[in-house]
Amino acid sequence: MFQERYDVIVVGGGHAGAEAAAASANMGSNTLLVTMSLQTIGQMSCNPAMGGIAKGQIVREIDAIGGYSGIITDKSAIQFKMLNKSKGPAMWSPRAQNDRMRFAEEWRLALEATPNLDFYQEMVKGLLVEGNRVVGVRTSLGIDIKGKAVVLTNGTFLNGLIHIGDKQFGGGRAGERAATGITEQLTDFGFDSGRMKTGTPPRVDGRSLDYSKMIVQPGDSNPEKFSYLDTVLLKEQRDCHMTYTSPQVHDLLRDGFDRSPMFNGRIKSIGPRYCPSIEDKINRFADKDKHQIFVEPEGWHTVEVYVNGFSTSLPEDIQYKALKSVKGFEEVKFFRPGYAIEYDYFPPTQLRHTLETKLCEGLYFAGQINGTTGYEEAASQGLMAGINAHLKIHEKEPFVLKRDEAYIGVLIDDLITKGTEEPYRMFTSRAEYRTLLRQDNADLRLTPKGYKIGLAKENRLRRMEEKLNKSDAFISFFRDTSVRPEEINPILDSLDSSLVKQSDKMFKVFSRPRVTMDHMLQLDSVSDFVVENNLDREVLEQTEIQVKYSGYIKKEKNNADKLNRLENVKIPDSFDYSKLKSLSFEAREKLEFIRPVTISQASRISGVSPSDISVLLVFLGR
Amino acid sequence: MFQERYDVIVVGGGHAGAEAAAASANMGSNTLLVTMSLQTIGQMSCNPAMGGIAKGQIVREIDAIGGYSGIITDKSAIQFKMLNKSKGPAMWSPRAQNDRMRFAEEWRLALEATPNLDFYQEMVKGLLVEGNRVVGVRTSLGIDIKGKAVVLTNGTFLNGLIHIGDKQFGGGRAGERAATGITEQLTDFGFDSGRMKTGTPPRVDGRSLDYSKMIVQPGDSNPEKFSYLDTVLLKEQRDCHMTYTSPQVHDLLRDGFDRSPMFNGRIKSIGPRYCPSIEDKINRFADKDKHQIFVEPEGWHTVEVYVNGFSTSLPEDIQYKALKSVKGFEEVKFFRPGYAIEYDYFPPTQLRHTLETKLCEGLYFAGQINGTTGYEEAASQGLMAGINAHLKIHEKEPFVLKRDEAYIGVLIDDLITKGTEEPYRMFTSRAEYRTLLRQDNADLRLTPKGYKIGLAKENRLRRMEEKLNKSDAFISFFRDTSVRPEEINPILDSLDSSLVKQSDKMFKVFSRPRVTMDHMLQLDSVSDFVVENNLDREVLEQTEIQVKYSGYIKKEKNNADKLNRLENVKIPDSFDYSKLKSLSFEAREKLEFIRPVTISQASRISGVSPSDISVLLVFLGR
Ligand SMILES: Cc1cc2nc3c(=O)[nH]c(=O)nc-3n(C[C@H](O)[C@H](O)[C@H](O)COP(=O)(O)OP(=O)(O)OC[C@H]3O[C@@H](n4cnc5c(N)ncnc54)[C@H](O)[C@@H]3O)c2cc1C
Ligand SMILES: Cc1cc2nc3c(=O)[nH]c(=O)nc-3n(C[C@H](O)[C@H](O)[C@H](O)COP(=O)(O)OP(=O)(O)OC[C@H]3O[C@@H](n4cnc5c(N)ncnc54)[C@H](O)[C@@H]3O)c2cc1C
Repeated sequence: MFQERYDVIVVGGGHAGAEAAAASANMGSNTLLVTMSLQTIGQMSCNPAMGGIAKGQIVREIDAIGGYSGIITDKSAIQFKMLNKSKGPAMWSPRAQNDRMRFAEEWRLALEATPNLDFYQEMVKGLLVEGNRVVGVRTSLGIDIKGKAVVLTNGTFLNGLIHIGDKQFGGGRAGERAATGITEQLTDFGFDSGRMKTGTPPRVDGRSLDYSKMIVQPGDSNPEKFSYLDTVLLKEQRDCHMTYTSPQVHDLLRDGFDRSPMFNGRIKSIGPRYCPSIEDKINRFADKDKHQIFVEPEGWHTVEVYVNGFSTSLPEDIQYKALKSVKGFEEVKFFRPGYAIEYDYFPPTQLRHTLETKLCEGLYFAGQINGTTGYEEAASQGLMAGINAHLKIHEKEPFVLKRDEAYIGVLIDDLITKGTEEPYRMFTSRAEYRTLLRQDNADLRLTPKGYKIGLAKENRLRRMEEKLNKSDAFISFFRDTSVRPEEINPILDSLDSSLVKQSDKMFKVFSRPRVTMDHMLQLDSVSDFVVENNLDREVLEQTEIQVKYSGYIKKEKNNADKLNRLENVKIPDSFDYSKLKSLSFEAREKLEFIRPVTISQASRISGVSPSDISVLLVFLGR
Repeated sequence: MFQERYDVIVVGGGHAGAEAAAASANMGSNTLLVTMSLQTIGQMSCNPAMGGIAKGQIVREIDAIGGYSGIITDKSAIQFKMLNKSKGPAMWSPRAQNDRMRFAEEWRLALEATPNLDFYQEMVKGLLVEGNRVVGVRTSLGIDIKGKAVVLTNGTFLNGLIHIGDKQFGGGRAGERAATGITEQLTDFGFDSGRMKTGTPPRVDGRSLDYSKMIVQPGDSNPEKFSYLDTVLLKEQRDCHMTYTSPQVHDLLRDGFDRSPMFNGRIKSIGPRYCPSIEDKINRFADKDKHQIFVEPEGWHTVEVYVNGFSTSLPEDIQYKALKSVKGFEEVKFFRPGYAIEYDYFPPTQLRHTLETKLCEGLYFAGQINGTTGYEEAASQGLMAGINAHLKIHEKEPFVLKRDEAYIGVLIDDLITKGTEEPYRMFTSRAEYRTLLRQDNADLRLTPKGYKIGLAKENRLRRMEEKLNKSDAFISFFRDTSVRPEEINPILDSLDSSLVKQSDKMFKVFSRPRVTMDHMLQLDSVSDFVVENNLDREVLEQTEIQVKYSGYIKKEKNNADKLNRLENVKIPDSFDYSKLKSLSFEAREKLEFIRPVTISQASRISGVSPSDISVLLVFLGR
């Protein structure tokens, strides 16, 4: 049925698979996306939202490189919020609520409009392997499809087992089949696999809720967006709402603990620490007498509502009784109960920085299969795997992002270097250089790289260059232009900031804590410059950040540069650690297993001490 | 989880289930729709099209009574055609191509906007029965949901088994699970069940087709629509295309016959005679050297294409090779192969005219579960079951349509009286009174009835009355107004119709074969009347049909009236046929099994002869 040999075969059409397929196809690889149902491409398994803290930055990075997640999010958003706007810009994190159906449909249409990309609906049952090289996949119908590289993005589907109270049944997601065959084949081949779990809350009928008892959560009054391209800003938005659990709700939930698969030992695998189930929360934080619940609409028109914060695998009658006791939920009607799902993953220390497996050439893993959780983490891995699969088969240099270049770099380096014992999600705290890795400059950081590898298009680069040039010019303007006391002092006075005695460079005044771009714009020369140069919101924001945080940014750049020197100390692929008798036993074992590519990576492996690093440095002649 | 006892529980959210749920909820019954996936409500399992010959009339009837299928079709149509426009108006049949995703989404949103209707996502595993009365359903999680009436609309899901070549696997549709438990319980209870099969063609990538080698099939230049309400007319349409198989294609297909589940005995059940698979066609019509293939887009934007006429369960490599040899398909890429599916159905002779089962009170069957095929047949049964479930629990008269009132009446009467050995689909030839059962007058026939039972809304009735009054007035105008020779003769002359010598009633001239409304409108008095009375296209059409076919219509009405007299001869529920020794043995057996309600129904049972009917009439004192 498939004459040709594909360049890249992507298995799975979730967030990882969709980005992987788009990337390799857009770069020119003949790509096939095989997925169990063509109607669930880009399906949001859990909450209908993209972004959030650190995750929003990842979506911006994906967009900057030339991936689709940002565009799809913008097209299907029903609400937008810039989180943490009161903190420094390193913490600003875009988040959107999405129309779940629109999101999936936009993904599907975007992929259909992608050149070099074919589609096929079926379950993949196994891989075709020759020696230690993957050469294709075999479907459940027994069809062999040949490919030079294969990207596996099976999400929560591998031997997926769904739990609700005492009951358990196979499935990859509610109402969808589990995928079988792949884990078994890979472990036979020598791969390590493990089990993880995750959970989801009940979906309920919005018509049965009393919103007047809840706190309304509107979107931003000036909503921004994810893509650096010219997607449309939201004109209308839908409100979310917030309510709380109570001691009574907690008591009702506790009634079900003896039938909880979490507590009675039926579920053995570990779930996401930072997306805990409600039973987990009241168990771990027994002293808290309430927890927040966010009531999120599932789309523009649907009455279906997502009960964020109430993820649970308790028996459905307990879910129901407890939720009914939540304020505003007295008359709640369920669309379906929450559940937990256990699935196979492959410890990501078995991967290279390119997400290619070490054991099997041409085979890439991306997404939840690597022990991560979240759409954004999945999508970014898919993008990187798709890019690297393309580059590899075209015998080009791999595309690896460093920890000071992108959250995506942090994510992948963490995964392959440290592995993960529990579902990994991104946080700003995982990044050493988060002042550099902001949501506002992902284009400046990454679009040139995306363009260079042939993924980001010309127009994307041009937009970024324009933004860069304009904000550079604006910064220079602030550096070079002086402001007279009589102009600036009224503003400083109103801000309770000490007055200036003589003319001073604008840059210096602007750097003061309480002075913002809005204040500077009150100066005629500044507002004239803005009008003359046709500067838009993005340029103003970029300039403001660059001016006001220049100190922090410079400092972090220096630190990063220092560490990058270690990053440049490469360890040869075939390095023989057994020769280095002075390494600790643990370090030798870990190093042999992970096989870090640089000294810097070696230093991040848990169990490898600074003295081990010295030994290595000495041996490598540094 | 479900406090209350529902009035009506509908199992399954296909075409039958969606209409059933909407009807009973709209009439005021507290209704629950339980379905395996809330994301596949109103899913089109096979071709993305509604209507067609006799089926289009059914959709118009559903709409006239107050169902949703017509509205949903209008909202999601991408092309409209009135089939058979060159024949008499009894044959005119509306047909629309639909955007598959839009169709399902519109259904979901329409149901969500319906009062009294709740939703729940899960598989129903069994029924709750007390004595011979259904009292609810049990889900796969073991949740009991109480209800006064239950409508089963399981479609092709009951023990569904999918076949592609030698391979077979459980499933209700490609990529979806089969439903288990219900058949077993019902047969234990005493129900008869059987197996049927149906099939679907491959879906392919429109970008891989060469449309220049095919014949374009545009929509009507003045597209009409399905609903009698004011849904919007199509402004743009998408083209379909046509191509042909060839002897070479047939040879390639024959290569797979030994691996065909149809021919090697793996599939034992009977498929739809009038939707045969391509292998069936070349087998049954061995002398035909080509068959039509309609190439239908699946939506406004998607590149997915439906290969109508190429339904097959041959091995996928054979499907591929053969389809590649079809003109325009040389470079075809598959999205997924075609397949056949076997499923359980319940011979519909076990039902009453209300679609309630005879064995179990309060239990209704509707749709494919009754051995029918087609969305329209399913939807109309769902509507009738939903209506009757509501009426029954509110102790109101059942709602039954007679054979001279609606195709829906013909459909249900056929099913419950004759049963069906093969998937039943509607044809105009199944209706004795098809001149009465036209697509243009479904509102006149049925809206008053729909209004009377409380389903059709006031505005629907008013629209229908306005159309009726206006066309009646226009008809009277033609009856009462004379036309002078000098006015009409130029027109008659141009039509090669004999000239009139003196003034004559317009009605008479208009009745002549070649004279159409367009010709009549050339007369000033006629066009003035139209303007003054603000007559729209529908009224003109209605008037034209009523004038030009008045003879036929009158004759059929008379025939129907005669038969209706038999329809009025009721047979008591508990009638003891064993007392009537002069009945033939076969007639007695069939009559005891079917238990017809009227002499007329008895007369339609195969095996009941006219002399048996005489015996019955004599006994009943007629
Ligand atoms: C119940 C549930 C709760 C979750 N809760 C949270 C949460 O609280 N917080 C959070 O951040 N994340 C949560 N997630 C995780 C989030 O949904 C995933 O991280 C994200 O969807 C992973 O993307 P992915 O592309 O790796 O996999 P998925 O989105 O799971 O997509 C996998 C795709 O691969 C296809 N597929 C699988 N196997 C095969 C095969 N053999 N052949 C062909 N196709 C195949 C599937 O059909 C599917 O399209 C939850 C997920 C689930 C299921
Ligand atoms: C492969 C295939 C090919 C077909 N080909 C043709 C054709 O060529 N021509 C033609 O006219 N028609 C064809 N059809 C038939 C057409 O699709 C059906 O006639 C129509 O969809 C029947 O509508 P329905 O509502 O009865 O059932 P479906 O549309 O099948 O809907 C059944 C619904 O019930 C749900 N369900 C089932 N069991 C349970 C349960 N136990 N609990 C909860 N929910 C349940 C399902 O999830 C689904 O939503 C085909 C169908 C299939 C699957």
